[in-house]
Amino acid sequence: MNSNKYIGIDLGGTKIMTAVADENGEIIDKVKLATESHLGQTRIKDNIFSSVYKVLANTNTKMENINKIGIGSPGPLNIERGIIYKSSNLPIKNMQIVKLLKKETGIDTYIQNDANAAALGEKKFGAGQEVDDLLYITISTGVGGGIIVNGNIYYGHTGNAGEIGHITVDPAGPKCGCGNYGCLESFSSGTAIKNMAKKAIKSKDETILKEMNKNNKLSAELVAKAAAKGDNKALAIFSEAGYYLGIGMASLVNIFNPELIILGGGVMKAKEYFLDKAKEEFKKRALDVSADIVKITEAKLKDEIGVKGAIAVA
Amino acid sequence: MNSNKYIGIDLGGTKIMTAVADENGEIIDKVKLATESHLGQTRIKDNIFSSVYKVLANTNTKMENINKIGIGSPGPLNIERGIIYKSSNLPIKNMQIVKLLKKETGIDTYIQNDANAAALGEKKFGAGQEVDDLLYITISTGVGGGIIVNGNIYYGHTGNAGEIGHITVDPAGPKCGCGNYGCLESFSSGTAIKNMAKKAIKSKDETILKEMNKNNKLSAELVAKAAAKGDNKALAIFSEAGYYLGIGMASLVNIFNPELIILGGGVMKAKEYFLDKAKEEFKKRALDVSADIVKITEAKLKDEIGVKGAIAVA
Repeated sequence: MNSNKYIGIDLGGTKIMTAVADENGEIIDKVKLATESHLGQTRIKDNIFSSVYKVLANTNTKMENINKIGIGSPGPLNIERGIIYKSSNLPIKNMQIVKLLKKETGIDTYIQNDANAAALGEKKFGAGQEVDDLLYITISTGVGGGIIVNGNIYYGHTGNAGEIGHITVDPAGPKCGCGNYGCLESFSSGTAIKNMAKKAIKSKDETILKEMNKNNKLSAELVAKAAAKGDNKALAIFSEAGYYLGIGMASLVNIFNPELIILGGGVMKAKEYFLDKAKEEFKKRALDVSADIVKITEAKLKDEIGVKGAIAVA
Repeated sequence: MNSNKYIGIDLGGTKIMTAVADENGEIIDKVKLATESHLGQTRIKDNIFSSVYKVLANTNTKMENINKIGIGSPGPLNIERGIIYKSSNLPIKNMQIVKLLKKETGIDTYIQNDANAAALGEKKFGAGQEVDDLLYITISTGVGGGIIVNGNIYYGHTGNAGEIGHITVDPAGPKCGCGNYGCLESFSSGTAIKNMAKKAIKSKDETILKEMNKNNKLSAELVAKAAAKGDNKALAIFSEAGYYLGIGMASLVNIFNPELIILGGGVMKAKEYFLDKAKEEFKKRALDVSADIVKITEAKLKDEIGVKGAIAVA
């Protein structure tokens, strides 16, 4: 039997994207299902299973053709035991997803946190193919990261390294979802941008965000639309997010002296409003010996990064 | 000929300590010479050479008995080419010390920055012998660090990784020697403690530091003496240094998920005045998954750490 195909599962807060790939990691086909996280842990598991069966059917692939399954999941995880401990975006507690999937499918299954998986995806199939020491930073709902050292993910002692979003960039900053104050995530994530916009709307300052938010659909995307219209408040919000991203990158570059930083995540669609500021602040703060040699680039895999990362995990 | 001995050279701003060690890294004897850095780069080089000849004579060792020479030096360096680019504590510019020493002695010579060398020393001979993922933080004139990943120093792409003292812990903080503002070093180093004491002495606040500093010999040690006498200002200074050390450690632990943090450097002699505060702030800010498993301990090698590190480099 020819078991040369791989399944990658990108488990997200709102959707599950599952793909079948060939031995080179090329996606043959993929399916997208709603996570339905509001319906609880069992439903999430069932939807993961469904996504696997659906993509197998769509690609006319038999289970015995699958060599390995990889999952990219929000953390914290126990990667060795294959457990999702909990997640700020999913109502999950100690979900033994690797064991459950292996029992259901009979296929060896591996899990990585989503940011590590994405970093591995960029290393294997994206912008980091030529590079052995790189940092991947994802700026989306949160800020996450993956550290590639000597060509491999650096996991740390218990698999929880790379929490780049939770370095303190300003100890007097806003409370972060993790409980700390002033994390990079509390300034530069999509959620942080939304929160700053919320404040601006409530303030006396003039901003078209007040008008644009009439139907209460505030998001980092909406703030980007306001910035595109030249709204000063929206531009200032992105500038602040960029300022702190630059501080975070400077600290990371001083620690890691990497060859490459890859920036990914949905908020990067609005990069024209914050990336210059981030680079400016980065240059000011990082040590020249490391700042001068690092390249800062954008993720290549775009919308497929999650599922390509999961394939890389497999 | 039996070439089973090693020379370790700890090049510091005020002294050069050079030792001959046996094949197990045990020091046979060591000598201490003044660096005489005020007399310039050539004099520093001559003093390094002298220290080597002196320790060879003291231990009745012939040059041909030496297998390798290791140097621990302030950075930034080019470790591959063996060059000290410059140093904030030494009047050095592009000193090709490895080439010069090899030419003088005929022995293969290796260089590492002092903090990396110390980290390696603690890993091989000190508190980190059982551990593969550890961070070494040295708190002395500056704050430095060494990162051990999978049992080896993590150098980064061009050998300048591990600049733990230059992560930004408060962007509005004091100017650091590196040019950045609010580095860990600008809050928690011996120099930072001295600078805070300087401010306190100039202020209207009551503190015995004013009296103790009558002969103008201000140092972190003097502040520790004031703290030992219960001086509130001195205690507050150490508390602030500890607060920021805790913030820095939390960021590092979130990034690295290490098994062990080893704290070394001269300022640790005053640990009773800042370490509890550092641990308290660390616990508040680090992610539980990583904070719960990391051990924080003190360096074992004490005054010999520099030279033992240099031996480990060899």
